[in-house]
Amino acid sequence: MDTTQLPKYQQIIETIKEKISKGEWPIGSKIPSQRKLAEEFGVNRSTIITALEEQAADGLIEGKTGVGTKVINNTWTLLASRQSANWSEYIDTGIHRASEKIVQEINDLEMDPAFIQLSKGELSPEIFPVQTMQKVLKEAADELSELGYEEPKGYLPLRQAVSEYLAASGIYASPSSILIVSGGLQALQLVSLGLVQRGAPVFLEKPSYLYSLQLFRSSGMNLKGLPMDKEGIITKSISLKKYEKGKSILYTIPSYHNPTGILMTEKRRRELLDVCRIEQLPIVEDDIYRELWLDEMPPPPLKAMDKNGQVLYMGSLSKTLSPGLRIGWVAAPEPVIDRLADLKMQTDYGSSSLSQRAAEKWLSTGLYQKHIENVREQLRVRRHTALNTLDEHLSGIAEWNSPEGGFFIWLKVPSTIPIRLLYRQAISRKLLLNPGSIYSDGPNHFIRISYAYASLGELQEGILILGEEIRKLL
Amino acid sequence: MDTTQLPKYQQIIETIKEKISKGEWPIGSKIPSQRKLAEEFGVNRSTIITALEEQAADGLIEGKTGVGTKVINNTWTLLASRQSANWSEYIDTGIHRASEKIVQEINDLEMDPAFIQLSKGELSPEIFPVQTMQKVLKEAADELSELGYEEPKGYLPLRQAVSEYLAASGIYASPSSILIVSGGLQALQLVSLGLVQRGAPVFLEKPSYLYSLQLFRSSGMNLKGLPMDKEGIITKSISLKKYEKGKSILYTIPSYHNPTGILMTEKRRRELLDVCRIEQLPIVEDDIYRELWLDEMPPPPLKAMDKNGQVLYMGSLSKTLSPGLRIGWVAAPEPVIDRLADLKMQTDYGSSSLSQRAAEKWLSTGLYQKHIENVREQLRVRRHTALNTLDEHLSGIAEWNSPEGGFFIWLKVPSTIPIRLLYRQAISRKLLLNPGSIYSDGPNHFIRISYAYASLGELQEGILILGEEIRKLL
Ligand SMILES: Cc1ncc(COP(=O)(O)O)c(C=O)c1O
Ligand SMILES: Cc1ncc(COP(=O)(O)O)c(C=O)c1O
Repeated sequence: MDTTQLPKYQQIIETIKEKISKGEWPIGSKIPSQRKLAEEFGVNRSTIITALEEQAADGLIEGKTGVGTKVINNTWTLLASRQSANWSEYIDTGIHRASEKIVQEINDLEMDPAFIQLSKGELSPEIFPVQTMQKVLKEAADELSELGYEEPKGYLPLRQAVSEYLAASGIYASPSSILIVSGGLQALQLVSLGLVQRGAPVFLEKPSYLYSLQLFRSSGMNLKGLPMDKEGIITKSISLKKYEKGKSILYTIPSYHNPTGILMTEKRRRELLDVCRIEQLPIVEDDIYRELWLDEMPPPPLKAMDKNGQVLYMGSLSKTLSPGLRIGWVAAPEPVIDRLADLKMQTDYGSSSLSQRAAEKWLSTGLYQKHIENVREQLRVRRHTALNTLDEHLSGIAEWNSPEGGFFIWLKVPSTIPIRLLYRQAISRKLLLNPGSIYSDGPNHFIRISYAYASLGELQEGILILGEEIRKLL
Repeated sequence: MDTTQLPKYQQIIETIKEKISKGEWPIGSKIPSQRKLAEEFGVNRSTIITALEEQAADGLIEGKTGVGTKVINNTWTLLASRQSANWSEYIDTGIHRASEKIVQEINDLEMDPAFIQLSKGELSPEIFPVQTMQKVLKEAADELSELGYEEPKGYLPLRQAVSEYLAASGIYASPSSILIVSGGLQALQLVSLGLVQRGAPVFLEKPSYLYSLQLFRSSGMNLKGLPMDKEGIITKSISLKKYEKGKSILYTIPSYHNPTGILMTEKRRRELLDVCRIEQLPIVEDDIYRELWLDEMPPPPLKAMDKNGQVLYMGSLSKTLSPGLRIGWVAAPEPVIDRLADLKMQTDYGSSSLSQRAAEKWLSTGLYQKHIENVREQLRVRRHTALNTLDEHLSGIAEWNSPEGGFFIWLKVPSTIPIRLLYRQAISRKLLLNPGSIYSDGPNHFIRISYAYASLGELQEGILILGEEIRKLL
């Protein structure tokens, strides 16, 4: 490949990758010292270090102080052929793909309290309603008489509460066409295991929610990214080949999209429903940020406008109340729910009864709705702080949207800046951000920052650091 | 096929199936009346009804009073080609197989309080420690400060508690080589998604735990049933072809096996470890009934004798404390745990924090161990009642083992009795049993009954009914 168009730093990475994959630097071999490499490429040592760090994060090489850097792998997919102890062969050959190394790294660093977390798609512990949760748990405890295996579709009182709750957004689903799941992610897992065929196309926004990409890919689906504008998916790019009909699905996050924050307009929603009806393309509507509107209520869910049972709707308590509960729901035509419920039984026998009981209390008592009002209030303050700080420190060196709800600001940096390098530089300053490259393939100049998790002070500090690092790389 | 060797009832089923699959009775068509069929086959109407009921349970036909019986499907796998609304095509084409209709039926009937439940593999609500659980939950509530996404491997204090708990059975696993899962079933799901290759052989006891069969099959594994004797798996039948090496796993339930109740002896455990070491066959040890010994402690787990990191060990609170908690654990070499943890993140982002906190309290305070002593006491009484009642009503018409622990009695009925018919007859008397046929392929003359769930009175009544129905079919 011609690497001369790439920034220096990327050229180095490509060259090293080539050497490894061609066997020039075989597994187990030591690679030249940083000094030597710096000479060879005519760059200074820090550029080499960054390039090597990226390779290490990808699992290709491993550096030990004093010992030097060794090649430990050629490509992730070639690992299977590595000669080693029993299990390690298995680890790399399973049906389900491992997360990219960088995603694993982000997961790990998200647990590190030393970092400013602008990556976490989660409400700040400051917003967590400790006292109310304690009260709810104690009430649930008092009412407890047994904790056996639940019905396949989930604890009936919870399904009733969800049914009533959904009616408020115009979705009419009886408890028997609702399935309780262990969070929205599990809903996607069940859909991809149970409803879609291997090799079938899955249409989705490009970029899209990280784990949905991973899941659909692992299940052997064929991802088809759809471009977006400010109103959501551009529907004219949806078209199915004949043999794809009756096999594909479309996955969308219409409200406060992850990672871009975009809210699909009502007009676009109707258009999307129309196109999908004509193409016979069922829709999976992931609406877990819906309640987090900050300026005005979002348009009705696709599911509420759906006359043909075309939409599978999913929601969750993770973004509004607590991810630790692991409670979400799916509403869809009953035979679909039956199928997913059967699958859920086969997968984990249902969600935690404790969590289901706690969730039921929150929803049925109105405590949930009251809590969300407070959440919105707090998120408005956070969004305000984030936008102000961005104005102050990043004007002229980045572009961003002002989100109408949800957690995220999708930040565009100048295209000369290697996004992964920016990510690494931020890490070296104990700032965790999500590089846009994990949300879609191809070249990428975006950073996702969340204003939901960090404290206001950290939010300001983090954005300040980000500005500094961008400037350094310009 | 030559059906003349089969019992009359089975002949009828086969004939009907043939007519449907050949299209003689197309989908949507009404089939002849029961009276006509009875004439045609020269049997009385009740035999026809039973045959039709079985077909209905398999989803082939559907009867409506007054309207007659219609063909609604040809085979489960052919459903995909059915002309109908969008989703139904999807329901049947997913990667993961649907449960057999009969398993779905059992799941449904297990929720029916009108039935005597000799099928449920679950402790009776009578044994559930309500007060202690309430106390534990309230303590956990008091200590709560947040409920965010957990670490990928699970809540650290719980992993520490599990680590100490496992040490008591001779298993040394540090918290970093332990993964918390939402029950044992999820552990199997992760193993089958993450460690095993599609098409790879999976060795397991024949018969084996229902959902493990289903899971491994759905993941495209090639099941190889191993015969058992009273001491467990007969190891000499384990042998791998060359191309299978490094691809297969062995799944075993060495303690109080489900469904047979067999306890693998220490000698056999050592043999199994040896054979598997030589064949380079990693072992998945499902030890979720281990604590339920009733006479004497079982031999050490395979994992405790494992010198080579060959064994992946799994346990759960479902059978000893509460299935509704959905808490189990896996102990294995750290890279394997890392892989499974990554996969768990991709699947459902971890188990309920509430459940994890409650589980931690039970284990770390010693309440769990105390509770299990009480469980054993109660199970001894139940086993005693079950065995006495069997002696009284089934002597001479069935054979059974006296289990040394766990929940199950594996009952052999005379081979002239069609096991599914017996199952149906029992259902008609509001008694739910598990026919042996769901635990392995091929002809089967076994019934699994559980003495763990029903009350003592129901246990006696259920066994009495079973005896009567067996006699009727002799
Ligand atoms: C769009 C979207 N869907 C689903 C999820 C999964 O959330 P959970 O499984 O916690 O409900 C997330 C979490 O980040 C998300 O952003
Ligand atoms: C042998 C065996 N393994 C695993 C399980 C799954 O139990 P759980 O997922 O509730 O821990 C069962 C339950 O019936 C079982 O019998």
